[in-house]
Amino acid sequence: MTASRPSSAPDATIATFAARLRNMQTDAAAERVTLAAVAEEAGVSLSTISKVLNGRADVAAATRTKVEALLAERGYVRRIGRAEAKADLIELVFHELDEIWSMELIEGVETVAKEHGLSVVLTVSGSRHAPDPDWIEGVMRRRPVGVVLVFSELAPEYRERLRSRAIPFVIVDPAGDPSPDVPSVGSANWSGGLAATRHLIELGHRRIAAITGPDDMMCSLARLDGFRSAMNSAGFPVDPAWIRFGDFHVDGGRDRARDILALENRPTAIFAGSDLQALGVLDAAREAGLRVPEDLSIVGYDDIPLARWVSPRLTTVHQPLRRMGEEAARLAIRLADEETTMTPRMDLATSLVVRDSTAPPPAV
Amino acid sequence: MTASRPSSAPDATIATFAARLRNMQTDAAAERVTLAAVAEEAGVSLSTISKVLNGRADVAAATRTKVEALLAERGYVRRIGRAEAKADLIELVFHELDEIWSMELIEGVETVAKEHGLSVVLTVSGSRHAPDPDWIEGVMRRRPVGVVLVFSELAPEYRERLRSRAIPFVIVDPAGDPSPDVPSVGSANWSGGLAATRHLIELGHRRIAAITGPDDMMCSLARLDGFRSAMNSAGFPVDPAWIRFGDFHVDGGRDRARDILALENRPTAIFAGSDLQALGVLDAAREAGLRVPEDLSIVGYDDIPLARWVSPRLTTVHQPLRRMGEEAARLAIRLADEETTMTPRMDLATSLVVRDSTAPPPAV
Repeated sequence: MTASRPSSAPDATIATFAARLRNMQTDAAAERVTLAAVAEEAGVSLSTISKVLNGRADVAAATRTKVEALLAERGYVRRIGRAEAKADLIELVFHELDEIWSMELIEGVETVAKEHGLSVVLTVSGSRHAPDPDWIEGVMRRRPVGVVLVFSELAPEYRERLRSRAIPFVIVDPAGDPSPDVPSVGSANWSGGLAATRHLIELGHRRIAAITGPDDMMCSLARLDGFRSAMNSAGFPVDPAWIRFGDFHVDGGRDRARDILALENRPTAIFAGSDLQALGVLDAAREAGLRVPEDLSIVGYDDIPLARWVSPRLTTVHQPLRRMGEEAARLAIRLADEETTMTPRMDLATSLVVRDSTAPPPAV
Repeated sequence: MTASRPSSAPDATIATFAARLRNMQTDAAAERVTLAAVAEEAGVSLSTISKVLNGRADVAAATRTKVEALLAERGYVRRIGRAEAKADLIELVFHELDEIWSMELIEGVETVAKEHGLSVVLTVSGSRHAPDPDWIEGVMRRRPVGVVLVFSELAPEYRERLRSRAIPFVIVDPAGDPSPDVPSVGSANWSGGLAATRHLIELGHRRIAAITGPDDMMCSLARLDGFRSAMNSAGFPVDPAWIRFGDFHVDGGRDRARDILALENRPTAIFAGSDLQALGVLDAAREAGLRVPEDLSIVGYDDIPLARWVSPRLTTVHQPLRRMGEEAARLAIRLADEETTMTPRMDLATSLVVRDSTAPPPAV
């Protein structure tokens, strides 16, 4: 065969393969050297090091801490594809389950796990900041393929322990703003606020109020900025009294809506920031003797099941929670298979669902 | 020391202990004999038998089936407390997650699992009848402490495989009627129907309608029977037109309530059978120009979060879902520790939660 172009591809492939093989051999040798050095420095046997790596319980806490610190110091990362394979598990951690849409996230992760022959270990951490120490020890023992954390931060020490075992993690956060140095899946809050407001503008509304969430949550600010941009683009003024920060719950929506509906220059529509707040706005409208949507249009946010059950059914912005769960699981599995230097971050699109709580404004 | 009474207790304890030890030794010997016989009959090695017992993948399907059948035939049960300990896992299986109260069951199981240092493996089976074959193979590999199934049946073949590995399972079924030969946790549906109806009677209602669930679900029938008993005890007649079977969803509640409210001899209160149906009844009342609770009282069932969010807030019967999850997990863990010949079955109490959708009937 002549050295023509077509044959260069296979040659390149073989060269790449050979290089990879060399790297793997070098990696394996380097790993043995690192572990031996750590054992010597910690004054323990290689078998103790192995116990620490495998999360075994029969190691003194002080020894474990010392070994972990030395491993971290040397930037040790366990090689993938060793004889001791990972378990067929993926870990899913919630800080709490009481948000009714946790279910969809769980279903998303479950679906992708099943596609990959993995089972889901579910942990409720009870704290927004980090799962507790029992959890990380359990993960070290279970050796899952990857970890998906919902609304949680992961302490740097835990990140390091996961990294050293080549267990990737992905943060799912539809509400906040995950730090840029961790792989994450979020949703497009700004676009959601924009779409909700544009819908009202297209129906003919000009006087539109917005109740968003707490002022220290990124998603609140993003949704509100989307609202402002839609109003500004349409050339409509925004009365500062029409903008309120709520709590994302029914009571917050009701209280803020009472204030707004008591204004002299009352708006004809309210973007309610969440479906629960929309429910509160619906209450306040009824109290004020206003019909929805004839006298007042309301747009929610989230598209929880409730939005289809209340009357009138809510026009709302759909959060792709199930897809977020799916993408997070897929990302964790992919990161377990591939080495990558970049930090993947993904914001999934939100979409407007038009139902019965919005209509053209009443004729003046 | 004289052989006086006080010392007889320790003697008895020692005798019991010695007897247990003998039993354990006998059991161990009997187990070895059983496994050797099965190996011979199946024409495989003891190591293959061990692979089957541990759910290892490197056994031909035909061999696995043959060995499993022989183990079942001989009533083999793996002894508890062997060197190869069970994993720190408990399995939780839902046939689907879209009921919004799955969350509370999960939380209940999670809480008890955590108390016992266990992690929860969550599986969504997608079928009411049984988890799929992958699931049972996974369980054999993972060797959890126990299994909690929600609304699911377990095929006899799977029951046998769990039994042979001494992995207990418990069925949680707040809606149906689990068969008497499996350990189960349910809730007191009849008492719930009774309590809801008594509350209306105590408020002064005499003309009370009931919308229950589908007529092929045991919980529908039990709730309705509770309603009838309360009415009969109070000596109030029940017009057959006041009793309807629904679908436990909003639409079913709305449709049945429309029919009931159109009756000439209209009731002053409706026991709605579920919170979602109560929501439909609320809609139908609004359509008919009736105020709730002034013109019509409504009692729901379930006490899902929604019941506190709608306006008026629903008077309803609380399902102890979180406690059902807790008790099921506790039962599974207890069955893993103790040998018992009886089949535990537990129905947890429901309780009435009085909120704003009920009031005395309008003065005629």
